[in-house]
Amino acid sequence: MRAYNFSAGPATLPTSVLEQVQAELLDWRGTGQSVMELSHRSSEYIQIMAQAEQDLRDLLKLPSHYRVIFCQEGASAHWDMIPLNLLQGKKTADYIESGYWSYRAIEEARRHCSVNVVASNRIDQYCALPQQSDFRLNPQAAYVHYCSNETINGLEFFWTPDVGQVPLVVDMSSHFLSHPIDVEKFSLIYAGAQKNIGPAGLSLVIIREDLLRPPKKGTPFLMDYQAQVHANSMLNTPPTFTIWVAGLVFQWIKAQGGLEAMEKNSIAKSSTLYAFLDHSEFYRSFVKHEDRSRMNMPFHLRDSQLDDVFLKEAQERHLCQLRGHRVVGGMRASLYNAMPLAGVHALLEFMRDFENRYG
Amino acid sequence: MRAYNFSAGPATLPTSVLEQVQAELLDWRGTGQSVMELSHRSSEYIQIMAQAEQDLRDLLKLPSHYRVIFCQEGASAHWDMIPLNLLQGKKTADYIESGYWSYRAIEEARRHCSVNVVASNRIDQYCALPQQSDFRLNPQAAYVHYCSNETINGLEFFWTPDVGQVPLVVDMSSHFLSHPIDVEKFSLIYAGAQKNIGPAGLSLVIIREDLLRPPKKGTPFLMDYQAQVHANSMLNTPPTFTIWVAGLVFQWIKAQGGLEAMEKNSIAKSSTLYAFLDHSEFYRSFVKHEDRSRMNMPFHLRDSQLDDVFLKEAQERHLCQLRGHRVVGGMRASLYNAMPLAGVHALLEFMRDFENRYG
Repeated sequence: MRAYNFSAGPATLPTSVLEQVQAELLDWRGTGQSVMELSHRSSEYIQIMAQAEQDLRDLLKLPSHYRVIFCQEGASAHWDMIPLNLLQGKKTADYIESGYWSYRAIEEARRHCSVNVVASNRIDQYCALPQQSDFRLNPQAAYVHYCSNETINGLEFFWTPDVGQVPLVVDMSSHFLSHPIDVEKFSLIYAGAQKNIGPAGLSLVIIREDLLRPPKKGTPFLMDYQAQVHANSMLNTPPTFTIWVAGLVFQWIKAQGGLEAMEKNSIAKSSTLYAFLDHSEFYRSFVKHEDRSRMNMPFHLRDSQLDDVFLKEAQERHLCQLRGHRVVGGMRASLYNAMPLAGVHALLEFMRDFENRYG
Repeated sequence: MRAYNFSAGPATLPTSVLEQVQAELLDWRGTGQSVMELSHRSSEYIQIMAQAEQDLRDLLKLPSHYRVIFCQEGASAHWDMIPLNLLQGKKTADYIESGYWSYRAIEEARRHCSVNVVASNRIDQYCALPQQSDFRLNPQAAYVHYCSNETINGLEFFWTPDVGQVPLVVDMSSHFLSHPIDVEKFSLIYAGAQKNIGPAGLSLVIIREDLLRPPKKGTPFLMDYQAQVHANSMLNTPPTFTIWVAGLVFQWIKAQGGLEAMEKNSIAKSSTLYAFLDHSEFYRSFVKHEDRSRMNMPFHLRDSQLDDVFLKEAQERHLCQLRGHRVVGGMRASLYNAMPLAGVHALLEFMRDFENRYG
């Protein structure tokens, strides 16, 4: 039987997508070959990749002046690629600090430029987002970077920072494709695959055409956004199989009703879990209500001595990968697109039962 | 039915490996999860990766002072990573030019240092390897780089350059794991996965411990060999599924009899094809006999007007991806580990028949 997998990433994938991958694994559409075995220059594979891009563009209603890059590197590679490509001779960039991942992006950017931390919630232990009114923006900054869903801390931006004329760059990794977005508010969007897109080993970049310029001298050639766009993401052999699976996930999202349906499902799933946590004395959520992520829900047992028993018993019921990130401790349930509402109900049934026995 | 796939990469994989991937795709060892869905920090996945490394070490008889890195980037990323990590303040490096891929490595290295081209066969149109006696080595070079199998030109080094005390760095992408190697002759070996290792979206680095030093300032953090070794190739989420498949390929090679068996098979397959080409007036191989690759065999039809008919008819017989690289034209048959001898026989039967009808 399929487990309910609450991992923050690599994460659960739609069962029907995995079934299709399984069915076609040794023979893609009568070619007698696995997609893994197709040359990336073959007409078959070029068609697979073009279809994946088109489906993504449809889902996001992407205007034609936004370009898509399928990057072999993970999302964190962009912590370097963004300053290397976007500074364009400027010496400073604005960063919003809102949790673990945006902090890591800041630390990496410091090696390339002077970082102006626009606002930080570190003093709040990353339990509530910084507010627009706190922002100390620098109109001369090359760009403003933020992370719109903090996977570890469980914080999600339900609003878009207003940064004036400065290009807005966003790490959407852990809630990408979970809701419609107004792409034109952003200059560059990036996301690692292993949450709502597909298997690990891929990241996506959506970049506004006018930002495509030659990067800083000495930039590794695969890290040149402009060259990647010009080469249709084929400066070298792309992760062909991973992109195929991502494309199947895009088709699955379309068939489910697109990003509007994903958002509706996300609201249903996350509000069910949060309502339960809010009425419990045994479990607790520690994130400010307005900022609570629909994707990643860290929570604690009031008695952390019970953590290991909780995890062991959950595992026995095929409720997997609930351990929280070591930075935060406790538990974390990630409810990505591929997690059905039934998985949340199964989790809550277990949590109630566990509380009855140990509370 | 399975086609015979002669692609230079992404390339054919062992059928039994694909069958195992298929069988376990939705449920790896009773977990109810696909390997794609396992957290890279889970005990299950850490075991998968450790096993893959151990099997690779066994195959190569790797001494303990050599470390393995599973890199998310492809082989060409190392064209930048090698100078960034290995120059260590030096201003010059030695490169042997022996074909398309070593040429590309040279062009990329020029952006980081002064390149001394030790020897070049460009004047021979990359149809024969440069010889040791031609080498103009610089004893002060940070390292010597070469490519031991030129996938496009069909040249293979059956000897190891003698470079004295300077560290020897080799791109083994397209013949890695096809024969035993004396690892201690090398300071750094790298190879892209999509030939004899597994699916695209992965490269391997084998590096001698004493070369692990902090890279040049400003190097993207994922490109730091030392940090990757210290993090067990987990500075970020590795391409988990791809590494799993690579590990299954390592186990398949072991079960076949290891690298000695791979070499024996390679000799049998390639000598069969070359013997045929050498006795033909209709087809011709244009590579110097002593340097002909056992992995990649470019050849031409004497009448190139027949190329498209040849490819169409081959395809109809499930002999796939025989078109030569655009740089060389004509045909190319890649006979990697996973290509059975029966595939070569099927190809020759077709080629004889085609010659009879069009010759």
